Amino acid sequence: MHDVDTTTPSSVTVLGLGLMGRALAGAFLDADLRTTVWNRTAARADPPAGALRAGSAREAAAASPLVVVCVTDHDAARAVVEPLADVLAGRVLVNLSSGTSDQGRELAAWAAAHGIGFLDGVISVAPAAIGGPEAVVLYSGSRAAFDAHEPVLRRLGGGTGYVGEDAGSAALYEMATLSLMWGTLNGFLHGAALLGAAGVDAVSFAPVADRAVATTAGWLAGFAGQIDAGDYPADGSPIDVHLAAMGHLVRESEARGVDAELPRLWRAVAEEAVARGRGGEGYAALVDRYRPGARGRGPAGAQPPVGGSIGPVPAADAR
Amino acid sequence: MHDVDTTTPSSVTVLGLGLMGRALAGAFLDADLRTTVWNRTAARADPPAGALRAGSAREAAAASPLVVVCVTDHDAARAVVEPLADVLAGRVLVNLSSGTSDQGRELAAWAAAHGIGFLDGVISVAPAAIGGPEAVVLYSGSRAAFDAHEPVLRRLGGGTGYVGEDAGSAALYEMATLSLMWGTLNGFLHGAALLGAAGVDAVSFAPVADRAVATTAGWLAGFAGQIDAGDYPADGSPIDVHLAAMGHLVRESEARGVDAELPRLWRAVAEEAVARGRGGEGYAALVDRYRPGARGRGPAGAQPPVGGSIGPVPAADAR
Ligand SMILES: NC(=O)c1ccc[n+]([C@@H]2O[C@H](COP(=O)([O-])OP(=O)(O)OC[C@H]3O[C@@H](n4cnc5c(N)ncnc54)[C@H](OP(=O)(O)O)[C@@H]3O)[C@@H](O)[C@H]2O)c1
Ligand SMILES: NC(=O)c1ccc[n+]([C@@H]2O[C@H](COP(=O)([O-])OP(=O)(O)OC[C@H]3O[C@@H](n4cnc5c(N)ncnc54)[C@H](OP(=O)(O)O)[C@@H]3O)[C@@H](O)[C@H]2O)c1
Repeated sequence: MHDVDTTTPSSVTVLGLGLMGRALAGAFLDADLRTTVWNRTAARADPPAGALRAGSAREAAAASPLVVVCVTDHDAARAVVEPLADVLAGRVLVNLSSGTSDQGRELAAWAAAHGIGFLDGVISVAPAAIGGPEAVVLYSGSRAAFDAHEPVLRRLGGGTGYVGEDAGSAALYEMATLSLMWGTLNGFLHGAALLGAAGVDAVSFAPVADRAVATTAGWLAGFAGQIDAGDYPADGSPIDVHLAAMGHLVRESEARGVDAELPRLWRAVAEEAVARGRGGEGYAALVDRYRPGARGRGPAGAQPPVGGSIGPVPAADAR
Repeated sequence: MHDVDTTTPSSVTVLGLGLMGRALAGAFLDADLRTTVWNRTAARADPPAGALRAGSAREAAAASPLVVVCVTDHDAARAVVEPLADVLAGRVLVNLSSGTSDQGRELAAWAAAHGIGFLDGVISVAPAAIGGPEAVVLYSGSRAAFDAHEPVLRRLGGGTGYVGEDAGSAALYEMATLSLMWGTLNGFLHGAALLGAAGVDAVSFAPVADRAVATTAGWLAGFAGQIDAGDYPADGSPIDVHLAAMGHLVRESEARGVDAELPRLWRAVAEEAVARGRGGEGYAALVDRYRPGARGRGPAGAQPPVGGSIGPVPAADAR
């Protein structure tokens, strides 16, 4: 665990010792980094063994060239770091508190105005996975700051990646990832409720569900290419076919007394596309319904270019 | 490809030569089975090489002990098979046209009344995957019919399975599987639209999405156990934490002009649970919201037993 590049800083500060902050500090300590910690409510903080406990946030920030803040949300993060602008100047601040991309950009602007190197990051795993090979932590903001501290940041997870200079892009990736996660989970729960209403237990569903998710996951890369190309070949499963089956799902849910709001929403999305003459296209064509100004869009090819407020972001190098 | 058990029937009929019917016939022919086909609109049918084309549905049904019907939906399937009751008597009819579990049961009752062996099946893959090791095709209905024709049916996919005597259970499994699939796909499309609105292409999102789906899939078996036990430990990510992040997703979507209906629905589901004092439980506790009579349910433990109209269904042996 002593293979940290000695030209990079080997000490780090963690502000916030909630479930996640404590996991972050633990991973740094496991890498033998000099780790200084602070928590607003000292009594609640239970620092991992070996951590240096600072008496104040100011003292903690002054202890390291790299300062990580991980508290409830961006508002809480600002409350912690704003009084420390002078001591943070010339250091690198990494925010790992959740927020929107605009909040990431606002914190970046504040940091820039005070000569603070800044990264806004997102953690896609539970605290227990921090430090492991599967832990995805994505950063955006100053490339120079990321490059200088990457060996230390990489201690938090094998899935460490940099997604762009725009400090809002990590939050955006996170939001997109969460959409996929909640989409999958709610679909699973609806399916489990449907089977449960007929006396089939969820454990019987699980292996079938695993297989279905793997099959579906196998389509995503291809769908992504179609989305970027704006061309959606149906490959045997056009929206028309999906729509017919969605009708069965809505009826089945209603017949069993299972809440059908979610299937009705999926069906409405498909129905709208069919009504616009796009029933022969593949499922990925439905992305247009979610896009800005989507209502009223015609067949593929007719879309205006995506209106972006930020530039293209390089692919995450997390793998 | 000549390892079909010679004690089992080696000829099969396929009624319906749409995208899927043609793929089914092709897989049977690949297994050197004598395959008779028929399509309502002869001009539209383009039978795979080697298929025997019948002049009528009656002639086709008379040609084989096993008759598969795969047309648009159950109504179409009934239109095809009802006039053939006399010729189907003593044979096995397998319906692979989509429908609800009640429709499967109705067709089974009709078949039983006419001395026809019956299976209602569902196909969970696109036509191109038929015959491959990953193709999931689940059957329910007469166990004897399944056992007699399993070697032939298995030619349609490595994921061939029998899920129960209740002819409605295959459709139920399918509906639950489709919930999961559409949930995942709509979450992905929403996420891609969100990134796209900020100028990030979908191909950059795909590897991150793959990882997120794999992570989420890893939770399902555990969630299924929790659902059956009615006990939902949070393991560091309680509904409260999800709800806070859902607020960011709704705001992020609205800020970029991306349709926020789906995230608002997920959030409403979580909010309802938090309002009932269940914010400290794990995500799987939200299954209760989808269950029959869910509105108004208190904390875990207070649920009435699931009210099922059909008996427990054995786990699919598809793996
Ligand atoms: N837990 C997860 O599974 C998970 C996963 C991915 C990302 N995250 C993100 O990680 C961040 C931290 O989550 P967590 O699980 O560690 O939350 P937590 O256990 O609830 O801890 C919250 C922390 O924030 C501090 N805090 C809140 N408001 C503050 C303020 N105004 N000033 C100073 N400190 C304040 C709390 O300090 P006190 O002790 O003084 O209240 C506590 O240290 C969140 O943004 C969360 O979304 C969590
Ligand atoms: N394609 C997929 O990806 C997929 C995946 C899983 C399950 N499925 C299911 O497989 C079934 C067939 O789908 P498909 O993709 O083959 O559909 P398709 O390409 O649209 O073909 C529909 C077939 O149904 C026939 N048909 C419709 N109404 C009829 C009637 N009243 N009498 C006789 N024949 C009738 C059509 O005959 P004509 O040529 O005479 O119109 C045609 O052969 C559907 O239930 C579908 O949900 C499909």
